[in-house]
Amino acid sequence: MEKIILGIDPGTTLMGYGVLRIVDRKAEVLAMGVIDLRRYADHYLKLGRIFERVSGIIEAYLPDEMAIEAPFFGKNVQSMLKLGRAQGVAMAAAISRQVPITEYAPMKIKMAITGNGNASKEQVAFMLQKMLHLDQEEMGRYLDASDALGAAYCHFLQMGRPTTDRKYNSWKDFANKNADRIKH
Amino acid sequence: MEKIILGIDPGTTLMGYGVLRIVDRKAEVLAMGVIDLRRYADHYLKLGRIFERVSGIIEAYLPDEMAIEAPFFGKNVQSMLKLGRAQGVAMAAAISRQVPITEYAPMKIKMAITGNGNASKEQVAFMLQKMLHLDQEEMGRYLDASDALGAAYCHFLQMGRPTTDRKYNSWKDFANKNADRIKH
Repeated sequence: MEKIILGIDPGTTLMGYGVLRIVDRKAEVLAMGVIDLRRYADHYLKLGRIFERVSGIIEAYLPDEMAIEAPFFGKNVQSMLKLGRAQGVAMAAAISRQVPITEYAPMKIKMAITGNGNASKEQVAFMLQKMLHLDQEEMGRYLDASDALGAAYCHFLQMGRPTTDRKYNSWKDFANKNADRIKH
Repeated sequence: MEKIILGIDPGTTLMGYGVLRIVDRKAEVLAMGVIDLRRYADHYLKLGRIFERVSGIIEAYLPDEMAIEAPFFGKNVQSMLKLGRAQGVAMAAAISRQVPITEYAPMKIKMAITGNGNASKEQVAFMLQKMLHLDQEEMGRYLDASDALGAAYCHFLQMGRPTTDRKYNSWKDFANKNADRIKH
């Protein structure tokens, strides 16, 4: 059984994305990248670009599911409104193509991937690089896509979580498989 | 010259809309209504419904422009994130059909329509009812659509603002035509 998961990290300055293909419970990276939104001065051009790009990625890779990194708290109401809009247009691209969406808090993604909810961006990238056999240069170039790829990978771990055979080799293994049971 | 303006008030519990047709600098109401989102428990179903309905309204009335009522400040970051998402999906419906969007702060709409930036919902509805020759029952039934209709009407006033013939009969007349010049 094959499954394609699109991970999105919709920000207002950079939007990261990562596409995973899951075959036989193994994940491989099909695509990853960063869309730089800083050159669009106009807020609507930014939103339009996000919608256009997410739609394009969905049409190119036909994901079965979308996972987004979604912070639920932020600095101030203004920035949260802008972030909400960026998330909203990215979600609309998925909703209009019947792609189900799952959200993951940044801490949950970090926890699922590194075993530490407060891991740095670099630690998350390092673990993803190891687990997904990416070369270091590639991961370094798209560091801002690591949160998006992390969201997709976190979703894969959630999906693949065994329900009958619960054996854990380590705390990290347990954490990977039961991130939702860990308080953070 | 005919112009269709769609006004939207995208909330997370109720979404109001109003469609105005402008012919010879006169505005008439083509449609108005309220979409009750409270019965959708799931956040994505709500967002999906907003996208679907706004898309449907755009396809039915083919507006030349969209005006949205957009508060820039709110109670807390959580509610602003949700509001931002609701606005984002409504905007995506317009963006994906190349309908230009203009935002108006609630105070600006109230000011443009009643001459008072702190007017109540009822006062805004009352003025719209008079100016657009709506019957009282109709306006009363769709009170929650009055902010959306107000956004569309405010946009019409902005568009139609005369640049050569600046004569004002009253403060309200001045306010209607120069809402952007009034500090509030």
